[in-house]
Amino acid sequence: MKKEYASEFIGTFALVFFGCGAVAINQLSNGALGLIGISVVFGLVVMTMVYTYGHTSGAHINPAVTVALAFAKKFNKDDVLPYIGAQCAGAISASLLHLIILKPLFIMQSIPEKMSYGVTQPLDGSFLTAFTVEAILTFFLMTVILGSAVDKKAAGKFAGIVIGATVAFLIMFGGPITGGSLNPARSLGPALVSGELSHIIAYLIGPITGSIGAVVLYAKLNSLDEQPNQVSRNEPDLEQSTN
Amino acid sequence: MKKEYASEFIGTFALVFFGCGAVAINQLSNGALGLIGISVVFGLVVMTMVYTYGHTSGAHINPAVTVALAFAKKFNKDDVLPYIGAQCAGAISASLLHLIILKPLFIMQSIPEKMSYGVTQPLDGSFLTAFTVEAILTFFLMTVILGSAVDKKAAGKFAGIVIGATVAFLIMFGGPITGGSLNPARSLGPALVSGELSHIIAYLIGPITGSIGAVVLYAKLNSLDEQPNQVSRNEPDLEQSTN
Amino acid sequence: MKKEYASEFIGTFALVFFGCGAVAINQLSNGALGLIGISVVFGLVVMTMVYTYGHTSGAHINPAVTVALAFAKKFNKDDVLPYIGAQCAGAISASLLHLIILKPLFIMQSIPEKMSYGVTQPLDGSFLTAFTVEAILTFFLMTVILGSAVDKKAAGKFAGIVIGATVAFLIMFGGPITGGSLNPARSLGPALVSGELSHIIAYLIGPITGSIGAVVLYAKLNSLDEQPNQVSRNEPDLEQSTN
Amino acid sequence: MKKEYASEFIGTFALVFFGCGAVAINQLSNGALGLIGISVVFGLVVMTMVYTYGHTSGAHINPAVTVALAFAKKFNKDDVLPYIGAQCAGAISASLLHLIILKPLFIMQSIPEKMSYGVTQPLDGSFLTAFTVEAILTFFLMTVILGSAVDKKAAGKFAGIVIGATVAFLIMFGGPITGGSLNPARSLGPALVSGELSHIIAYLIGPITGSIGAVVLYAKLNSLDEQPNQVSRNEPDLEQSTN
Repeated sequence: MKKEYASEFIGTFALVFFGCGAVAINQLSNGALGLIGISVVFGLVVMTMVYTYGHTSGAHINPAVTVALAFAKKFNKDDVLPYIGAQCAGAISASLLHLIILKPLFIMQSIPEKMSYGVTQPLDGSFLTAFTVEAILTFFLMTVILGSAVDKKAAGKFAGIVIGATVAFLIMFGGPITGGSLNPARSLGPALVSGELSHIIAYLIGPITGSIGAVVLYAKLNSLDEQPNQVSRNEPDLEQSTN
Repeated sequence: MKKEYASEFIGTFALVFFGCGAVAINQLSNGALGLIGISVVFGLVVMTMVYTYGHTSGAHINPAVTVALAFAKKFNKDDVLPYIGAQCAGAISASLLHLIILKPLFIMQSIPEKMSYGVTQPLDGSFLTAFTVEAILTFFLMTVILGSAVDKKAAGKFAGIVIGATVAFLIMFGGPITGGSLNPARSLGPALVSGELSHIIAYLIGPITGSIGAVVLYAKLNSLDEQPNQVSRNEPDLEQSTN
Repeated sequence: MKKEYASEFIGTFALVFFGCGAVAINQLSNGALGLIGISVVFGLVVMTMVYTYGHTSGAHINPAVTVALAFAKKFNKDDVLPYIGAQCAGAISASLLHLIILKPLFIMQSIPEKMSYGVTQPLDGSFLTAFTVEAILTFFLMTVILGSAVDKKAAGKFAGIVIGATVAFLIMFGGPITGGSLNPARSLGPALVSGELSHIIAYLIGPITGSIGAVVLYAKLNSLDEQPNQVSRNEPDLEQSTN
Repeated sequence: MKKEYASEFIGTFALVFFGCGAVAINQLSNGALGLIGISVVFGLVVMTMVYTYGHTSGAHINPAVTVALAFAKKFNKDDVLPYIGAQCAGAISASLLHLIILKPLFIMQSIPEKMSYGVTQPLDGSFLTAFTVEAILTFFLMTVILGSAVDKKAAGKFAGIVIGATVAFLIMFGGPITGGSLNPARSLGPALVSGELSHIIAYLIGPITGSIGAVVLYAKLNSLDEQPNQVSRNEPDLEQSTN
């Protein structure tokens, strides 16, 4: 086992255990966290994991980020599948631990636990809404990652705060519409554990579509301005062209 | 198309799509965000866009900031109109996308959608209140920008956090009085899309009056202290005089 | 007029206009900010003013901080009275502007405006409670300032965030007990404008007692450890001894 | 008395006085802080104390952190007992001051004060839940400390923000289940003062079990990857192996 894979496992475990867990806690505590609290927990987990594991694995903790970085030639293609495997394993493990720790509390308080482990579903029950909104949300998440973290000159060590803050406001907006997943692994864990798999496909391909779209646009904008200096048009080096 | 203009378009799009969108989400979710949540979303979008596009376009995403920086001779006058055009186009596009994505949700939940796309209006229906309070709010926003970002020695890379935090507290105060716009483009998008154009003039000229006022005062204070060293009194160089 | 004094005037104006103003907005908007929102506004104003004016005047915007820094020999004694004058003038000006802008809104909404401009009063009506709790709160504010800002090696440019965060949590704790002033100028403005001057003495001397107490303890702890190296015991140089 | 011990005393005093105090204030003010507010106060106190005392004592303010750092050979074993003594003395002193300052306010408002000084108890009354959840929460707190603060290259001066943010989201999740202690000293103060000592053992050993678990895993992951370069397997130097 490589240290990078273990970092992605633990980081995504933390995201689902505390982020999706906050959804459950909100139900157990009569709405004590609300949309603001749940969004803040997700944002803070992402932020703290970036500072904890960024220097080990890059702290993607999100298959949509891993795929898009590989697409942008900023991440080794051979590590894509092991990364996604570690992320999904971490997410599913966290949801399983929710069953062990939180389910007895729901039963004790006679609260119906349906949806309470962070399952993501579209408000209007539409696949198209889930796919489109998740793609838009993740487009902006990836745009911020490219502008603030891939271009290291821009934000430097602030990138962790910036990315965490982006996750927080995206969920404050998108949470009531689609659950605000932005992350196939984060949706997969609760879906598998609860057996609520309707619309799961939208949450797997929506975020990846959005994150790849962000890479395409970012590369296009940079290549447009710097065409004269570029040797190869087919392989725009994002980092180089933004510096 | 220059990369700078595209950055201003996307940045202002994000501000209106997620910031004004948070106003709509608040209605759709029975007040789940409230004044605090809406203000925080606006502040976090501004903060994250500064780190994402600051190194490309300066991340003004606000005509009042662009005009004031040009007035302070810190921004090329020839870029003022294209910047404002990109900002307004981004804001209007975001409001149009709200109609496509959010309007069906309002209809589905039988919620009257009036005012729900982030239209700004004065609490007391007074043009003078809207103009005065927006001018005061934007005066402080621009003062913080001048003190923390134009003078790069002061806050350095912290400037994005500082400016975002300022937007957040200004809207927490000003939101219930005028909607807390601080930004002509941000008010223009929802106004055009909803057809609610009363008082729009106050939201176009109020912020610009305030931001120019901040530049005038900042220059005056610095020139007062450093008159002996200044060659030309008519063109105070803000950056130089604060260093 | 020196630039330093103008900075203290504007900074303290902002603190009272937006901080105490948040108390009024909370009443006007049926409690939309609450204790958390009001505390966050105060904290964010302090934080942003440190980054805006820290490089000009030090951004004390609080007579208790100015007096304690002079007592610690970290601030020129000759500037103490002009600084306090500028701070109090800024606070009173902000409260006067509240009367002009906010009073008509209270009247329009038929809300009794008593206490609504940020007057500070002890929950139990006791002078001793106000004095003691304000002294304790300001002791910790000044301890954080000494440890994170006076010792520049410790927190560097993070000091603004640290001090603003301290103001926020101190008011979250102290707000319901004493109003959470921490600052004679901040209490003086609303008290003079509203004519509610009972207990004002506690809010003038409590914070200064606490901030001087923090300097005394800080100096004592450092001198205890570094006695052998100190030439003069009577004038402990805080900065030197902590480095 | 050494300056380090005094710093741990004051820092832990602040944690209990303002953090546990926020629990009491929440009851006194009819729930004005709620779970979000209480969690934020704990997080901000930890963050600000790291910047205030980090350069003096390391700002552990938590016996579980002190023990785990010593176990990881990152902290002098001879200082463990004096540190724990100072932390517990600070916590108990803060809880005693709560009795003096806050008890009269509870009596005045006729509010039953049971549990109101921040006593931690498991929601389901189970020792196993308290022990397990506190161990998990503190495992993640210590993992973040190791990844962001012990490895100074990773987060540098951001570590204070990162650790404070972690405390905040851990309590948002764990607060309703166990009280979200993460810290034997923080639980001991309120327990002794209120006489509510049931389950206290879980709060003493749970956090220490979790923090030592984090050190074991962190060392194992690093040693796995870097075995060839390690001279002694029995004494993994965390800092060295992560650089």
